[in-house]
Amino acid sequence: MLPRARRAGTAIGGGVTKPARTRVAIIGAGPAGLLLGHLLRAEGIDCIILERQSRAYVESRIRAGVLETVTTDLLRRLGIDARLNAEGLVEDGFNLATDDQVIRVDLKALTGKHVTVYGQTEVTRDLIEAAPERGLEIIFEAKDVELHDIESDAPFVTYVADGAARRLDAAFIAGCDGFHGPSRKAIGAGAEFERAYPFGWLGILADVPPCHPELIYANTADGFALASMRSRTRSRYYIQVPLTDRVEDWPEDRLWDELERRFTPLADRPVVRGPALEISIAPLRSYVFETMRRGRLFLAGDAAHIVPPTGAKGLNLAASDVVYLADALIARLARDDESGLAGYQARALERIWKAERFSWSLTRLMHRFPDEGAFEHRMQVAELDYVAGSRAMQTAIAENYVGLPL
Amino acid sequence: MLPRARRAGTAIGGGVTKPARTRVAIIGAGPAGLLLGHLLRAEGIDCIILERQSRAYVESRIRAGVLETVTTDLLRRLGIDARLNAEGLVEDGFNLATDDQVIRVDLKALTGKHVTVYGQTEVTRDLIEAAPERGLEIIFEAKDVELHDIESDAPFVTYVADGAARRLDAAFIAGCDGFHGPSRKAIGAGAEFERAYPFGWLGILADVPPCHPELIYANTADGFALASMRSRTRSRYYIQVPLTDRVEDWPEDRLWDELERRFTPLADRPVVRGPALEISIAPLRSYVFETMRRGRLFLAGDAAHIVPPTGAKGLNLAASDVVYLADALIARLARDDESGLAGYQARALERIWKAERFSWSLTRLMHRFPDEGAFEHRMQVAELDYVAGSRAMQTAIAENYVGLPL
Repeated sequence: MLPRARRAGTAIGGGVTKPARTRVAIIGAGPAGLLLGHLLRAEGIDCIILERQSRAYVESRIRAGVLETVTTDLLRRLGIDARLNAEGLVEDGFNLATDDQVIRVDLKALTGKHVTVYGQTEVTRDLIEAAPERGLEIIFEAKDVELHDIESDAPFVTYVADGAARRLDAAFIAGCDGFHGPSRKAIGAGAEFERAYPFGWLGILADVPPCHPELIYANTADGFALASMRSRTRSRYYIQVPLTDRVEDWPEDRLWDELERRFTPLADRPVVRGPALEISIAPLRSYVFETMRRGRLFLAGDAAHIVPPTGAKGLNLAASDVVYLADALIARLARDDESGLAGYQARALERIWKAERFSWSLTRLMHRFPDEGAFEHRMQVAELDYVAGSRAMQTAIAENYVGLPL
Repeated sequence: MLPRARRAGTAIGGGVTKPARTRVAIIGAGPAGLLLGHLLRAEGIDCIILERQSRAYVESRIRAGVLETVTTDLLRRLGIDARLNAEGLVEDGFNLATDDQVIRVDLKALTGKHVTVYGQTEVTRDLIEAAPERGLEIIFEAKDVELHDIESDAPFVTYVADGAARRLDAAFIAGCDGFHGPSRKAIGAGAEFERAYPFGWLGILADVPPCHPELIYANTADGFALASMRSRTRSRYYIQVPLTDRVEDWPEDRLWDELERRFTPLADRPVVRGPALEISIAPLRSYVFETMRRGRLFLAGDAAHIVPPTGAKGLNLAASDVVYLADALIARLARDDESGLAGYQARALERIWKAERFSWSLTRLMHRFPDEGAFEHRMQVAELDYVAGSRAMQTAIAENYVGLPL
């Protein structure tokens, strides 16, 4: 297999390269780029993924862990689901809590669907693992990626690998390189929408059993807290912290004390402590770059939009973008039908804005906003009281949580 | 009838009064006070209403016009429903619109209920009209009302009528005197929650047929607009204006031009112009005073809480407060059961906070906020797009609009 692996941008002599060629150059080996690559390869379309980081780095990045059926269906359709089926936890509900009450949103009863707990890290590993046998070439440690001539019929990407400058020519480029990657910048000015939030999430990952079988999102007197997990033996907890806090301000014991204090009254089991596999503070942001296409460059996933992590929409939104983009590229490359590419941005944005709305709305509902007053807090309490008693409102939340239809 | 009318605070000589006595002294002859008076009289409990304004003034005040079934059921239970049945318009739906789409919320299909268009002015008139035959005394033009000894077993009210100082003793006092009345002030410091909005509603009332058979709440590029009505021949329109605007800034033609521009693309029929019966600008406010009881004084309606008019919850919330308060007073006065009075505040607040939430949330969804950015506006658009496609979300809106259960 791997027919193109050795040919991609092979260095010739002192750093000069003989250009390689593929149909779709994919920038970024996160879930978006990997899923897109697999979908294209499943239709026999050549593509190459360029990834700035090493394989070890990509496979150990700690990210989200709740998959919509849109995403698990996609992994099943690709046949990359053996470990997902064996290790993924099917979750038929999740919980919204305050200091006083736990509201279980029964996803299965309300929508007939569920979500699956399976770490993004594991998804990434499975997709990378399956790449060689499917002829999906991934070039890791491709540095200084630059996109060229995207508005022409002959776009190309340059990068540096193994110390040599290289070039990859393609019919199309897919920018799946996240918020900080070069693809969005290559588009230039576009319609951009942003909101920052006045707090961050301090997260800890540890190999201890979770305190509750389903996620608990809690709006407590001290702010937001989330009890989540990656498996039956690996817990993921978060608490809301001021943006001025640093990881150094939070020795592990202080964080465990805080988690114990918040979740002991809400959870089925005690909060079990263990050494941190990872501890970090992440800011929360809502961001949409509407200009998802310029010429032959198309953006997907975090390259075009960021959601705050509340509700776990980030990875799932990347998956739905990629379903649309793969459909469109396959139609163009296999059947010379341009309509999918022409409609990609509008089709993707419709779902993106709804997921942005849900993530923003759940973030607003569950966090304490230092810039808002007592009335706004009472609105949160009143909304949660209303949710507790309204099947209609629970259904609305549930249908967003499991993922709106494609 | 009217056995107490002549006895209430009769002036003796030079402005000194012989105290009158009743079981419940009700401050205010708005819908809250009038409904409470009728409910108490229906159980044979003596009460007297003191109203600062004249009967003519009270009967001509222009207020809301959309009644929940909670409110129409109450009027029917009192048998004060002849004109409501003859003239009220049953509305099986209402509309949320943008410049691009009209989303009809089918109240009947989604909840099995409806709302009724019937002006608060008409409700007030019917309740006043029915008062004498039911032995409900209303003392109009009762000035300088003051509440005394509310924490004792013998509270009383003093006021001035016909130039003489008068006094009314009562077992209980019901403060139904609106946001600016003396009752809430008599409670003193309490738990208070408030939010002001950075705009007002410019309203016009005119005897012209409405442009649409059901209400249209529109979030247009120029701000919020509402096409409403009081009957098949009387229209009520509003548009969002900056708080700095004055009525003088809006000659009628300018306002009609604006309404025509906004509603022509959305409504079934043209906007018909006519001379204004009333034109005014009202600020929008969310306000809750949680301390609804002190001693023998109980607050109901606007005296304790204000909602922005979006969703028409004000009058209906007064009606539900009064149902709870009447139940409690009747239990106490007819059966010496104190539990209803003890639980009144908590019972009322549960529904109040949910109605406050709905009014706040619909206000946020449908207005342009000058202090918010492009991202927040896109959240409104995304929410309306989501509402348009989600039966669950439409049901959640509908169940609030027709009124949550008592």
